[in-house]
Amino acid sequence: MKHFITFLLIGFILTTLINCSKEQSKPNSSTIEEIPFAIVIHGGAGTIKKEFISPEKEKEITNKLQEALDAGYAVLKKGGASLDAVQAAINVMENSPLFNAGKGAVFNSAGKNEMDASIMDGKTLNAGAVAGVQNIKNPINVARLVMDSIKHVMLSGKGAELFAKKYGVEFEEDAYFYNERRWNSLIKMKEKNGEKIQIKSTKNLSTNYVDEHKFGTVGAVAMDKNGNIAAATSTGGMTNKKFNRIGDSPIIGAGTYANNTTCGISSTGTGEYFIRTLAAHETSSLIQYKGYSLKKALHEVIFNEIEPLGGDGGMIGLDKNGVVAWDFNTEGMYRGYKRSTGENVVKLYQE
Amino acid sequence: MKHFITFLLIGFILTTLINCSKEQSKPNSSTIEEIPFAIVIHGGAGTIKKEFISPEKEKEITNKLQEALDAGYAVLKKGGASLDAVQAAINVMENSPLFNAGKGAVFNSAGKNEMDASIMDGKTLNAGAVAGVQNIKNPINVARLVMDSIKHVMLSGKGAELFAKKYGVEFEEDAYFYNERRWNSLIKMKEKNGEKIQIKSTKNLSTNYVDEHKFGTVGAVAMDKNGNIAAATSTGGMTNKKFNRIGDSPIIGAGTYANNTTCGISSTGTGEYFIRTLAAHETSSLIQYKGYSLKKALHEVIFNEIEPLGGDGGMIGLDKNGVVAWDFNTEGMYRGYKRSTGENVVKLYQE
Repeated sequence: MKHFITFLLIGFILTTLINCSKEQSKPNSSTIEEIPFAIVIHGGAGTIKKEFISPEKEKEITNKLQEALDAGYAVLKKGGASLDAVQAAINVMENSPLFNAGKGAVFNSAGKNEMDASIMDGKTLNAGAVAGVQNIKNPINVARLVMDSIKHVMLSGKGAELFAKKYGVEFEEDAYFYNERRWNSLIKMKEKNGEKIQIKSTKNLSTNYVDEHKFGTVGAVAMDKNGNIAAATSTGGMTNKKFNRIGDSPIIGAGTYANNTTCGISSTGTGEYFIRTLAAHETSSLIQYKGYSLKKALHEVIFNEIEPLGGDGGMIGLDKNGVVAWDFNTEGMYRGYKRSTGENVVKLYQE
Repeated sequence: MKHFITFLLIGFILTTLINCSKEQSKPNSSTIEEIPFAIVIHGGAGTIKKEFISPEKEKEITNKLQEALDAGYAVLKKGGASLDAVQAAINVMENSPLFNAGKGAVFNSAGKNEMDASIMDGKTLNAGAVAGVQNIKNPINVARLVMDSIKHVMLSGKGAELFAKKYGVEFEEDAYFYNERRWNSLIKMKEKNGEKIQIKSTKNLSTNYVDEHKFGTVGAVAMDKNGNIAAATSTGGMTNKKFNRIGDSPIIGAGTYANNTTCGISSTGTGEYFIRTLAAHETSSLIQYKGYSLKKALHEVIFNEIEPLGGDGGMIGLDKNGVVAWDFNTEGMYRGYKRSTGENVVKLYQE
């Protein structure tokens, strides 16, 4: 009996030890659940309402957003860097006439396309940006080259184009960027402002369709399998913009911010208010110093900091745990995300 | 007896009321002590060591910093706005060849002066900035005009110059900005980099004196009698800069930030690191969300955020209580402050 009890006791201790060891070597599934790889994108915020968009157009936009998500996700899935993923997603949107970036960039006051872009690496806090560049097919690629190749963070205008040429970046003729609805928007805005129209399109205008979608900036934030966060933003800026205005998109901390210890953010909206509130960096600070969730921080910045000043727009974000969030105070925002957990969401309107 | 008591009672009530009223109308001296009007300025940070600067040059620099402080202080003393005070102080430094801003701006790679400036109003969070402007006598005045006159925050290059012309801003010929030691610095840097020297000065070089002072950006932060904080920064950027590089000086949140609820900040140094850390806004966030003093926040940002990335430079600041502080990780920083409490300090070297 004594032996039996001793055996029982030893058996119990051994079982407990084995179980303990198993428990420790088993991958912590909740941690994996918390840190998936993921990508979140936006294609601009503004007066996006179901009644303004035809079912065909809705499908076209949804498909293009999905294509951008898939391009970024593919990079992440094969173990690629989040920097490459956000660039791949943005390239898809820059190459489409549907968004105000790259091919679809709006026209400035002189009837030219004048684009801004920026990218940031949340691991190293490296960043690159270009402002006011013309005829560059993919401005985000030049921002990436600035980050990777030289000590500067931000280049502008003709100097940035010279840099892009030196690095063999793809340029396109004006005709590539021509977009009838963008051109009509410009003419309409000039008429509304009572401005003399001294510019001429190289193509004939055939419709009166005008783009009422205010801010079509595109952006992406991703986290890769190594937990590195990257954020990027690309835009054509504002229709009829003058004086080589620079908006928030190429400004690190306003339009774009990434920091592995907090989150990655890309903004879209009335850029001046995002500059004055340092919207992207402010979101990160609220997470870092106030312990806010990404969702709460985004809401705070948009509704309690930007909106009281008179600004509108939206932000997308992804925190260090791979949690995705967005918020906006406009009628809608083209947006979507895809995570390694299987979630895949694309949305256009307010809910 | 009844009347006597009534009189006593009325007397007591009246005396109490009079005393109360006196108490209220008496200026609260401790509040004045806590919120004095004040201005703090910098004329750049870098390799500023006593052994490199002749007693005559030291006197010249000290006098010019004092002149800038006095110009700003005079505005504050007569009840003027902090925005006007920082502009007045910066104009003095922009009009001197001693600092890398306005008249003393360094040369870019093409042998031209290419300047940046920004200003921010801590009361409204309004801001204005120009990047990469040439031949403008006082770039800070254009930044102010951007803030006051149009809805944009940031203009750049030729567009910003067009805007300045439209508003009647003073322009100067290239010769006005010519500065022998700046020119020698450019030639020396090009030689060091092994670059072909294809640029020519319009004037003969007579000495080999080269400016080793790395970052001569100028800046000012002030608080006026109404407790409003303003901050401003103006610079010629980096010697031999290429590709229309934009540094931190015209970037709101990096080179300049002002918020009545926290502080005002102006930065100088290797701009890229101030952009990546959002140095000015980060200082404000540490005060707002972590309860740091201005002094502690400045130290944290410079030594624990900028320096680990490889950056150097300095910042000046003034908090909502009128407390002045500065910090830098370089050998020296041209700096000074003047407060309504009677303090007047001008310093060049590390202590």
